[in-house]
Formats: sequence, structure tokens, C-alpha cells
Amino acid sequence: MLIDGKALAAEVEAKTKARVEKLAARGIVPGLATVLVGANPASQMYIRLKHSACTRVGIRSENVMLPEDATCEQLIGRIRELNLRSDIHGILMQLPLPKGLSPQKAMMAIAPEKDVDGFHPVNMGALLLGAERLVPCTPRGIIYALERLGKGLEGAEAVIVGHSNVVGKPLAAMMLNRNATVQVCHVFTKDLAKHTRDAEILAVAAGVPALIKKEMVRPGAYVFDVGISRVGDKTVGDVDFDAVKDIAAAITPVPGGVGPLTVAMLLEQTVQAAESQIA
Amino acid sequence: MLIDGKALAAEVEAKTKARVEKLAARGIVPGLATVLVGANPASQMYIRLKHSACTRVGIRSENVMLPEDATCEQLIGRIRELNLRSDIHGILMQLPLPKGLSPQKAMMAIAPEKDVDGFHPVNMGALLLGAERLVPCTPRGIIYALERLGKGLEGAEAVIVGHSNVVGKPLAAMMLNRNATVQVCHVFTKDLAKHTRDAEILAVAAGVPALIKKEMVRPGAYVFDVGISRVGDKTVGDVDFDAVKDIAAAITPVPGGVGPLTVAMLLEQTVQAAESQIA
Repeated sequence: MLIDGKALAAEVEAKTKARVEKLAARGIVPGLATVLVGANPASQMYIRLKHSACTRVGIRSENVMLPEDATCEQLIGRIRELNLRSDIHGILMQLPLPKGLSPQKAMMAIAPEKDVDGFHPVNMGALLLGAERLVPCTPRGIIYALERLGKGLEGAEAVIVGHSNVVGKPLAAMMLNRNATVQVCHVFTKDLAKHTRDAEILAVAAGVPALIKKEMVRPGAYVFDVGISRVGDKTVGDVDFDAVKDIAAAITPVPGGVGPLTVAMLLEQTVQAAESQIA
Repeated sequence: MLIDGKALAAEVEAKTKARVEKLAARGIVPGLATVLVGANPASQMYIRLKHSACTRVGIRSENVMLPEDATCEQLIGRIRELNLRSDIHGILMQLPLPKGLSPQKAMMAIAPEKDVDGFHPVNMGALLLGAERLVPCTPRGIIYALERLGKGLEGAEAVIVGHSNVVGKPLAAMMLNRNATVQVCHVFTKDLAKHTRDAEILAVAAGVPALIKKEMVRPGAYVFDVGISRVGDKTVGDVDFDAVKDIAAAITPVPGGVGPLTVAMLLEQTVQAAESQIA
């Protein structure tokens, strides 16, 4: 079975749109501000994708641009302005930042209740402690898909490849909070296949094209491919999709899998943030 | 080899004492306040242990007691007083709290820079993000012991049994930050032995006496037993020590293993907190 990220995202968008309309009836339009430092083309594309998704569900969005050579003080100053604005409910700082700017310091400046990317330490900490509030969007999308597919996490053997702050570590915490048995592998893992073959649920976020071959996957596994790489003129994931699809119970394609779900979760979290700020 | 928690703790205490003396030369005496709600005998015992450890290294300590029926507001009020005092550098709220009091809410009230137990969400989040500041003391003790024993974590197969907020989850994050391959098992895990047999490093914090038998341990493993239970008139851990010691490369006894190390880490973190508050 193909896990159709676009279809799942469309479902989430429809539900989110309904929540936006409820807020509108109270005179509130959820507002998202994105912050882009410099002119990284990939970042510009992601920002565009997010703004057009906002438009689809009725979230007002704006982009704050800073030059490549902006100082940390300037960046934090702009974030603080956004923190104070009551028409902005969510703030997303597009990563990566240009060299010389500390993402940790800048992230700390975002008001935790507006941190719709879920990267502020206090939100990450609440996540690790099992009191999830705003959480990183890609892990949230994977958890959502599993729930929607009826694949329970309690007692399930989950294996994550990649231990980044954005995907691997927060996803591990979210799966543990749902009582999965969790293994986290990465570039330092000695025998990756030995681990991945245990997985009833396999999430791969390594950024290495075709890292996961058919013989590394347990038949009947649910496979989530977070990788996005360009190989020639094709966009590919970390999983050898054509081979693995024959033995997986369900698998996300790249593109059209985890990506659209991540954007949908951002919309949902922005509305969640708006709802909690007026409550 | 026996991992002598008392000896390792004594080492840490000696180093901590030297740091206290350096602070004294600047006119600063590190201060730790413990907060105890109610009269749980085990909690009282732990508090006494911590205060006498403070005395050994020259940390001034005091205990704030609240009655069993204290309200959340009263508890938070007392914590806020301690936050404001410049002679108190560390605040430790003894868990568990009486029913009706939310540990999360109370924990949020502790100034993060005085959170020497490392349980505040912002410290937990920094930990998950790989920017460790003040961290939970038991995981820190285990990491310390591994470093001291020269057992590298990078690429090592680590298995943790237990996924609590106090030990399992923060230890998993600390091991991932050091590039171990990490598996976290718990009461919902289907085949515990299958996982534990992978472990070059095995940390058990399940609270189930003799849960880990010899045949569940990989020969040559480093075994850390965090469990403390009373069985008859004996204090025992989660590992069948007498059998497992024959095949482990190194193992902590109970008592005298992880416990003393945890207290030593509390002292070290209190001094660390004092140093960072005067910097």
C-alpha cells in the first residue's frame, strides 16, 4: 500500500480549514510569520510552499526577510517584534541559517507558544517529558499517518535511521511516549541492516539516496521515507522505493509522502497556537 | 569488574570540593535548597543523604518543608522565593509529590539555571537538542562512569530498559548525543531478551527485581543497574547480579553502584550552577 501523503495532507487541511472558519466567526484570523535570513534557493522554495498552503486554509501569512549578513541581534530583534504582535500566532524561522548565526540562540528568542516548528527547547523538553504541545512537524506527520492507518505504536518495534534534532530525536521521543520499543540508528551504527530488519515501523531520515535496500526491510513493515535528495533530474528518498514497496505493508513515496504531511502539520499547529493564545 | 559507585563518587566529590574551595576564595558558598512536600519516609531518607553529601564537599544546604496538604500555589510560592535568593544556586524538588500536586507545573516554576535535577522542560529540551546544560543526575552518572572506564559511546550498541522521564528518556538522549546506537525497551516491549542481548552497554531502570537474567546479557557488556527494590530485608536491583557478574565486563552493584554516583552528580551540578550564576 502506498501511503499517499498528499491525500492525508488534504484531509488535515480540510479539518484545519474548518477550525480557521470557527476562529473567523470569532473575528480571529490565524497569522503565521516566516523568517528567512539570506537567499538560499531551497529555503525560498520551502517558504513559498508554506505560504501557499496557508492561503489554501485561510491562514494569513507574511514573510520577514533579513539579509545574508544580518547579525544575531538583528534577527532576535525581528523575532521579538513578532512575539509582541497579537495578529501573529505562529513564527517559523527557516533553517538552515547562514553561517555565523546560532540557530539555538535565535530559537530561544521565539515565544514558546508561537513556536509552530516545535524547536524551542521548552517545547522539545515538554515533548521528551511526555507533555507534547507544539512539536516538530515531520515527526508529528509520521505519528498522524500511523494513527490514520490504524497501525498502533504501543509495543510496536520502531526503528529510526537518523538522529537529528529535527526528525530522529523528537520522533524517538514521540514514539516512546506512545510506548513503542524504539531503536535509533545513524551514521555511527555498526550494522544498520541488523537493526532495520527488526522494524515493524521504519522511519528513515538520513539524507542518503537508496540507503535502505529491500533485504534490510522486514516484510510487512510500515516505511516512512523522510529523505529528499536530487539524483540527476530526479527527486529521491533514502529508501530504494521500487524494491522495498513489494515487501512493505505500507510505504511513503518521495516526493508526495512525508513532505506534504509535514506542511499540513505546520498549518494544524499554527491554528492550534492561535486557539491556545485566545483561550 | 565491579563498577564501584562509591569510589567513583568519592572522586567526583573530591573534584567538586576543589571547585567549592575556588568559589570560597571569591567569597561564594554554593547553596542548595531541597523542597520536600509531605513526610514520605523514602523521600526523607534521600533528602538526608543529599544534605550530608553537601556537607562533605562544603555546599551549604537547607531543606524547605511543606505539609502533605500544601496547595500548588503554596509550593510554587516557596519555589519562587528560592529563585530570588542569591545565596541559593540550586533547587531540588524531591519527587514524588503528594497526589493532587502537578510535578510538571511545580517544575516549571524552578528557575532553569537553578534546576540542578535537570527536569525543567527547557533543560530537558536543551538536552534533547544536544546542548546539555543541567541534566538528570542518574543518566549523567552513567555517562560519567562510562567515560571514566574508557568505554566509548560512539558507535556502541546501547540498550536501555525503562522509558521514564527521570532515567530512560534522558539517558537515551544523552547516549544519542554521543553517537551510540540506542534501543529503548520497557514494559510494553514484546521480546525484551532479544533486545538486551544486543547490548554492549545495558542500563536497566525498570524497578523489577532480577528482571535481567544471565541469558539476557551479552558477554562483555557494561551493565548499569538503576533499580532499587526491597526484597525481604535485602536491597536489590533489576539485574540478577550474582549470575550476570560472571559474564559482564563491568557491572554496578546495588546498593553502592548508580546511587552514590547520582548524588555525586547532584553536587557537581550544584557547583556548576553556582559557577554559571556568578559568571
